[in-house]
Amino acid sequence: MQVVITGGAGFLGQRLARSLLKQGSLPDRSGQLQAISKITLVDVAAAAGFDDARIEQVTGDITEHALLERVITPQTAAVFHLAAIVSGQAEADFDLGMRINLDASRLLLERCRSCANVPRVIFTSSVAVFGGVLPAVVQDDTALNPQSSYGTQKAIAELLLNDYSRKGFVDGRVLRLPTISVRPGKPNQAASSFASGIIREPLNGQPAVCPVAPDVRLWLLSPRKVIASLIHGYTLPAEAFGKSRTVNLPGISVTVADMVAALERVAGKQVAARVEWVHDPAIDRIISSWPGAWDASRATALGFTGDAGFDDIVRAYMEDDLPAA
Amino acid sequence: MQVVITGGAGFLGQRLARSLLKQGSLPDRSGQLQAISKITLVDVAAAAGFDDARIEQVTGDITEHALLERVITPQTAAVFHLAAIVSGQAEADFDLGMRINLDASRLLLERCRSCANVPRVIFTSSVAVFGGVLPAVVQDDTALNPQSSYGTQKAIAELLLNDYSRKGFVDGRVLRLPTISVRPGKPNQAASSFASGIIREPLNGQPAVCPVAPDVRLWLLSPRKVIASLIHGYTLPAEAFGKSRTVNLPGISVTVADMVAALERVAGKQVAARVEWVHDPAIDRIISSWPGAWDASRATALGFTGDAGFDDIVRAYMEDDLPAA
Repeated sequence: MQVVITGGAGFLGQRLARSLLKQGSLPDRSGQLQAISKITLVDVAAAAGFDDARIEQVTGDITEHALLERVITPQTAAVFHLAAIVSGQAEADFDLGMRINLDASRLLLERCRSCANVPRVIFTSSVAVFGGVLPAVVQDDTALNPQSSYGTQKAIAELLLNDYSRKGFVDGRVLRLPTISVRPGKPNQAASSFASGIIREPLNGQPAVCPVAPDVRLWLLSPRKVIASLIHGYTLPAEAFGKSRTVNLPGISVTVADMVAALERVAGKQVAARVEWVHDPAIDRIISSWPGAWDASRATALGFTGDAGFDDIVRAYMEDDLPAA
Repeated sequence: MQVVITGGAGFLGQRLARSLLKQGSLPDRSGQLQAISKITLVDVAAAAGFDDARIEQVTGDITEHALLERVITPQTAAVFHLAAIVSGQAEADFDLGMRINLDASRLLLERCRSCANVPRVIFTSSVAVFGGVLPAVVQDDTALNPQSSYGTQKAIAELLLNDYSRKGFVDGRVLRLPTISVRPGKPNQAASSFASGIIREPLNGQPAVCPVAPDVRLWLLSPRKVIASLIHGYTLPAEAFGKSRTVNLPGISVTVADMVAALERVAGKQVAARVEWVHDPAIDRIISSWPGAWDASRATALGFTGDAGFDDIVRAYMEDDLPAA
């Protein structure tokens, strides 16, 4: 059982790899558990801290056909395609976003198509495929109407993955991720970076800026549940998906004010006071175009689960990621 | 005022060119009427029968950058992008469909982006972007859920045109065409080819095969109204479109049985009896995934108009296209 993770040196990629190493096996096409013999992490740089013989690290440009040919082979059973240019950066550098979020996804699908045993491809999409005038709760069949280049590129890759799956070229699964909170590490160029920063930085004794109004509503999922969903998305048989390979994952719907209130309940007034409110119209425009909640009944019926509440998400971050005091 | 028509030697391209030559002018960005000095027809072959100095014919492959660079210039005010691989052919030859319906559209948008004065790009999309479980009447915001490679490629081009327009790289307008009936000429590889054939062939004294059940419902527009809609789509100011450049054009909703009944009313029992019913599951699967009606209130508010009824469409074909007896 060989697994490929693009964006494998990123936060989700590394965490997924560690979970798979720990779990040790995955079901094959016939549902039989098979030991994982190799996990290839593909990224622009190598991840540090892996000393497991099952881990292979390949660095390079995933828009290069030769690299894809090397890492995805007829022995590959699963491709977790996580590599992406994040929303803020894809808006600032249109061509880079097109190259990585669209061209690389298509090349990857083409490489999978050329393999005798087509792998399962688990692709992470985003709330950003929605936008414009939205219902209070977005449904699985709400129209794609992205208001950013990132959302456009993700929506296009969703369509490709569905058509490639319908044609039998790959066995694809598209998981639309809620905004992930709390991401560990440093802020990134995602428009939603603050949704982790306003919890993470205060817990690490640092000030944090919130660029959107307190009543802006977000749809959130914790890193723990993202990893569990990726693995569950691989495990489901193709037939379970019916006519659409795209699933809106369950999240929790909270306002930014709710998030800071939860931080105060879990970590105290002094910590929550480290959040500063400085409005940024460019970020607010992107974030406000995303849905604050969606109907996740299809995902739930398929066995995906979300978080219990934001207080739990804050505690999970403290357990998993906060450096020991 | 210079105009480019891709697929310019096709039936719609030629008819559009003749209408523009007759009309003689189009409004520029500021709304001032300008004489049309050049119409470039781009296609794989030249169209016959044009002897007007304003017509330039360029033959070649529109996925070639050099060709696009030659035909689209900073002097180009309008690009009618009609070139496409039709539904049946795109399903049979996936790679050809991707190359013409997706890659060529993207290259064309990139070429327009590189021009100092970005042209208006009028792109024809299709009912085929919809599919799966549909409401009785499809709305403007019904989810894209194509069940064919053609529909997938059109949906992707729609998304690109919207994002390129939002970024100011082009001034795009996406017109979702109902199924066109009655097309003149020969059957083609579109899954919907029969929707013209069952009227055209009997009127020309030939037998015709209907591959779908009599109760299959179609959403139809006549060639006359398509041409008027393309020109109107160019004429509207960008601001009229708001947050989406995509418009569902008005059609009429009729069953295949209704169409044959109209043929009988207009041309007689003997003519209508030339339709033979031979079910083709592959065509029925594609056609039945398309909506039989959609809400056209946005298009109507924007000034687009459809046909009065199918009897009129049959008569219009007889007037415009039927060889004199």
